[in-house]
Amino acid sequence: RLAPADYVAGILGRERSILSRFITLLESRRLDDRLPARQVLTALLPHTGRSIRVGITGAPGTGKSTLIEALGLMLTGRGHRVAVLAIDPTSRISGGSILGDKTRMIALARDANAFIRPSPSGKAQGGVAGHTREAMLACEAAGFDVVLIETIGAGQAETAVAAMVDFFLVVLIPGAGDELQGIKRGLMELADLVAVNKADGDSARPAERACALYRNALRLIHPVDAPWVPPVVACSALENKGVDALWPQVLAHRAALERTGQLALKRRGQMVHWMWELVNASIQHALYDRPEVRAVSCRIEAAIHDGSMNPLEGADCVLRALGIR
Amino acid sequence: RLAPADYVAGILGRERSILSRFITLLESRRLDDRLPARQVLTALLPHTGRSIRVGITGAPGTGKSTLIEALGLMLTGRGHRVAVLAIDPTSRISGGSILGDKTRMIALARDANAFIRPSPSGKAQGGVAGHTREAMLACEAAGFDVVLIETIGAGQAETAVAAMVDFFLVVLIPGAGDELQGIKRGLMELADLVAVNKADGDSARPAERACALYRNALRLIHPVDAPWVPPVVACSALENKGVDALWPQVLAHRAALERTGQLALKRRGQMVHWMWELVNASIQHALYDRPEVRAVSCRIEAAIHDGSMNPLEGADCVLRALGIR
Repeated sequence: RLAPADYVAGILGRERSILSRFITLLESRRLDDRLPARQVLTALLPHTGRSIRVGITGAPGTGKSTLIEALGLMLTGRGHRVAVLAIDPTSRISGGSILGDKTRMIALARDANAFIRPSPSGKAQGGVAGHTREAMLACEAAGFDVVLIETIGAGQAETAVAAMVDFFLVVLIPGAGDELQGIKRGLMELADLVAVNKADGDSARPAERACALYRNALRLIHPVDAPWVPPVVACSALENKGVDALWPQVLAHRAALERTGQLALKRRGQMVHWMWELVNASIQHALYDRPEVRAVSCRIEAAIHDGSMNPLEGADCVLRALGIR
Repeated sequence: RLAPADYVAGILGRERSILSRFITLLESRRLDDRLPARQVLTALLPHTGRSIRVGITGAPGTGKSTLIEALGLMLTGRGHRVAVLAIDPTSRISGGSILGDKTRMIALARDANAFIRPSPSGKAQGGVAGHTREAMLACEAAGFDVVLIETIGAGQAETAVAAMVDFFLVVLIPGAGDELQGIKRGLMELADLVAVNKADGDSARPAERACALYRNALRLIHPVDAPWVPPVVACSALENKGVDALWPQVLAHRAALERTGQLALKRRGQMVHWMWELVNASIQHALYDRPEVRAVSCRIEAAIHDGSMNPLEGADCVLRALGIR
């Protein structure tokens, strides 16, 4: 581990290995890693906020990483410095990673102007959101002017990511249970753009039909006079068709929101949201990691388990140990 | 509002109107409703735990309520007293209810041995789980020996419900994007039984294919020597075909788990889980409802919004107001 000042200097000096090590520090569950991580972050904060932040979500099998790679290569080709943060959500029960090993985005990984970081999600509530947001800020301080944050569209992660980006791209594919995908109304409500990927070969026609379906769905969600009605575009990341049409949408959205001052408002609202995430994460840390609280809760758990205490009484004891109530 | 002792007497005396009013009290967000609710619950606790607790989940359109009604009527016909708790999850963004008005289960609602309670979900984290578990306990104290808890299979609700029931039934339909449904691996992992509903008319054949698909999926999740490998059955709630085959599965599962002592273990683990839910709910209440904490956080939010404070500093101030750190 480095001293906080060395992390700060390295990140501001755009040293990718230091950036990587700092993200590892952010992800650390060790109690004594928290203070230095926080010191570095505080020093980096004035150097953050100057990237275009894009969330990209889609179920496994939608070709999301191929799409991200195509988009990333296009952007570095135009002189952007692109950071990609991938979230590996761990299943609550199996504990296994859904994405498995990350031998993906090979060409982009070799690109000197790209930085790819797959982040394992912690089990703590709010952990995913916390690490990802802080990693995004570190990437900005390291001079990346585009940050792409990938999620797999499975529940809370996309809501958390939508709360930290400027633009949210939802990737779908034709014919994969459109009815059911459509039911994910919450996901459609988050979208600033829907890309129907794999619009190639036999899927070209079904992709057009899916686009029409989603356009209708989005029209129902957004009033016609909304500053931004999310477009729906077909593309094929595999054949690199239509991917170049995605970025102009990101820029058009940005222009529309900047015109009305909404982008600044959105960013400030996200800062407030982050404050609440920090509060909740600290409470969870206090609950599960502080030795004196942990000792009490272990005893309480045992007492509830053997029936000598009811959960209502037990909760009071834990809260008292935490200092609340 | 009644005095706590009157709620207790009414519920133990099986007065449905008192049970209803108590569940309303549990759902109340008023600070001064919390202590009486807790006093009643504490008094009821010794009279709880003697029902068969079944969670039933399925996406909108799977015919879940028709299935619950058919199952409920079958059970009351056999002398059971059946309580049905429905969760209305409110969409985080639109704030609207997905289920809409509840003019459902009309025949069951008229049944003297059934009690149907649609519970609006609160916005507080853990709120859904808390109210629902406590409503379930109240129903048990009121002599209901079967409690059916409905969710719409959208994210956290089903995990929360699975953590409070003995048996978890997942309702699917044929041809509604099987691939995507299959991706919901987390949901399949929670299932003790999968019912493929709407296996009628033209859907009879697709239903059989869907059953085979899910049987394979479940075999991959559960080892062959597991005490219970979740069966997959086709049924038609609309034509009341196959619904009577569901309950024997619930009883067989129960017998299998009782034989190995796992049912008692599961219930005790759920009590510990409830304790943690209570702890987290109390913290959220303290954060958002205590006037002195609320006053601080309003000031902090404003300071972050106008840029005079960063979220890291802001979080510290809120935590100090809460008494933590």
